[in-house]
Amino acid sequence: MLLLAPRRRPGPSSGADWAPAFAGELMPRQITAFSNPLVKDVRALREKKGRRRQGMFLAEGLRILTEAREAGKLPAILFYAEGTSHPLLDTLIAEVEAAHGDVVETNADILHKLSGKENPQAVVAVYRSFDTSLERLDRSSAPLWIVAQALRDPGNLGTILRTGDAVGAGGLILVDDCVDPFSVEAVRASMGALFTQKIAATPWPEFLAWLRGGEGQLIGTSLRAELDYQAPSYARPAFLLVGNEAQGLPQAYEAECDLLVKMPMHGKADSLNAAVATAVMAYEVINQWRSTSRA
Amino acid sequence: MLLLAPRRRPGPSSGADWAPAFAGELMPRQITAFSNPLVKDVRALREKKGRRRQGMFLAEGLRILTEAREAGKLPAILFYAEGTSHPLLDTLIAEVEAAHGDVVETNADILHKLSGKENPQAVVAVYRSFDTSLERLDRSSAPLWIVAQALRDPGNLGTILRTGDAVGAGGLILVDDCVDPFSVEAVRASMGALFTQKIAATPWPEFLAWLRGGEGQLIGTSLRAELDYQAPSYARPAFLLVGNEAQGLPQAYEAECDLLVKMPMHGKADSLNAAVATAVMAYEVINQWRSTSRA
Repeated sequence: MLLLAPRRRPGPSSGADWAPAFAGELMPRQITAFSNPLVKDVRALREKKGRRRQGMFLAEGLRILTEAREAGKLPAILFYAEGTSHPLLDTLIAEVEAAHGDVVETNADILHKLSGKENPQAVVAVYRSFDTSLERLDRSSAPLWIVAQALRDPGNLGTILRTGDAVGAGGLILVDDCVDPFSVEAVRASMGALFTQKIAATPWPEFLAWLRGGEGQLIGTSLRAELDYQAPSYARPAFLLVGNEAQGLPQAYEAECDLLVKMPMHGKADSLNAAVATAVMAYEVINQWRSTSRA
Repeated sequence: MLLLAPRRRPGPSSGADWAPAFAGELMPRQITAFSNPLVKDVRALREKKGRRRQGMFLAEGLRILTEAREAGKLPAILFYAEGTSHPLLDTLIAEVEAAHGDVVETNADILHKLSGKENPQAVVAVYRSFDTSLERLDRSSAPLWIVAQALRDPGNLGTILRTGDAVGAGGLILVDDCVDPFSVEAVRASMGALFTQKIAATPWPEFLAWLRGGEGQLIGTSLRAELDYQAPSYARPAFLLVGNEAQGLPQAYEAECDLLVKMPMHGKADSLNAAVATAVMAYEVINQWRSTSRA
């Protein structure tokens, strides 16, 4: 039973280049069982342990994979369902092959196995995880950055990345123990913004030292704040600090903010979803800048 | 083995009053097995079919249940883990008992079974589903209403309810085939706003007829729009129309809008999460009204 049939064997130089965990194994030419090591390795990427060990992550769907390609990120391995036909898939296949990546035609059963979804996307891809060191961020490359502290929900993380892309942010800085940005749910919720936004992960003291080593206004939102979020003038580069979903920001972190603001709340619950609050805040900042440039 | 031990038997008048599906059964005094009908019925509420059949739904966690209580909504059945101690739980138990609801002390295994979560909340409750007919909405009771069309994600639905509460909206009108607002994920994401926001569900033609039968400005957001969302002056009552996550609004629906606006997008992807877009739009509207009242 031929389950996975690669369209071509990768060139001799490609193995070590893209997949540390698979290096040293023979490249699959034919995969005849669910128990094939490649299928097992790719499935393992649904768990954080597997992603850590292999340094790779999963993304699904032609829309997200195309966003990635347009951002210059090609997958190491591209799986697609037999019979799938789309001009964007053809482009993707051609570019992955030109970059000596692995292109694998497969079937819905295997894609279901890989993605864990009832109705899997027709394309699933494996990417090399990005370097998330803070030093690689160039703060002057964007006027706005989002900083999330102890964010726990992968959907929120992905949604914040997507918002960051929309507002022209440079990227997302993950402070303290955040959920893995390379989790399947975060990648999906980002709708491809994972590939266009820079991502850094760092403990709070390191972030603070880095921030204070250059220009930047740190803006926190807090229910304890007295300043309305529309009152101050925001300076570039602005760093929007969003706290954990359940606890909000620790008071010690709030104390480090240059501005501590609150959004109006007219309801009974006095709270917003973390990704929603980030977006409302980010749009206020860019709207101010739009007004200034129009005036 | 005693698994479920109700603290008291409900009064003789309470049975038919709160639980159509359980009416006619003897009330549980002791439940000694996972296979008990009550456990089975409550578990079934995790699926839409079960909710439809029984006219009931599940909510979890002391915070959400307390929001509900403060909004005047008490559960028909309240389960809590043995050994749980909290003043808010005591208040809740007292009020549920006073209203002849059913209070059941149980254990983590049963709560896990009921909620389906690895780490279940210490309290789980069963509520009667609300009437979602459009006619019950009083548009003059709030300046702002949110209308969602073919919304598919329960997390988005709950998050929009939560935002609606924060911005002082009257409620959420679900148009066409939306995800069930009483699903466990929607209730959870709403953080209790499900109990403070009015909810209606209706096909588009009925909604439009109702809308045009009174005052109201219908405001749609669209990538096809040319009008910036900060340009117009929004009128009360404002109805914010948000489209399906993947397709956005049908063009025919956009054509019915009094205003069609777009938010600035500086990124590569030209899209926002549906709940995020709703919140950014809603805050623009209430901010305009704040400015007017301050001027």
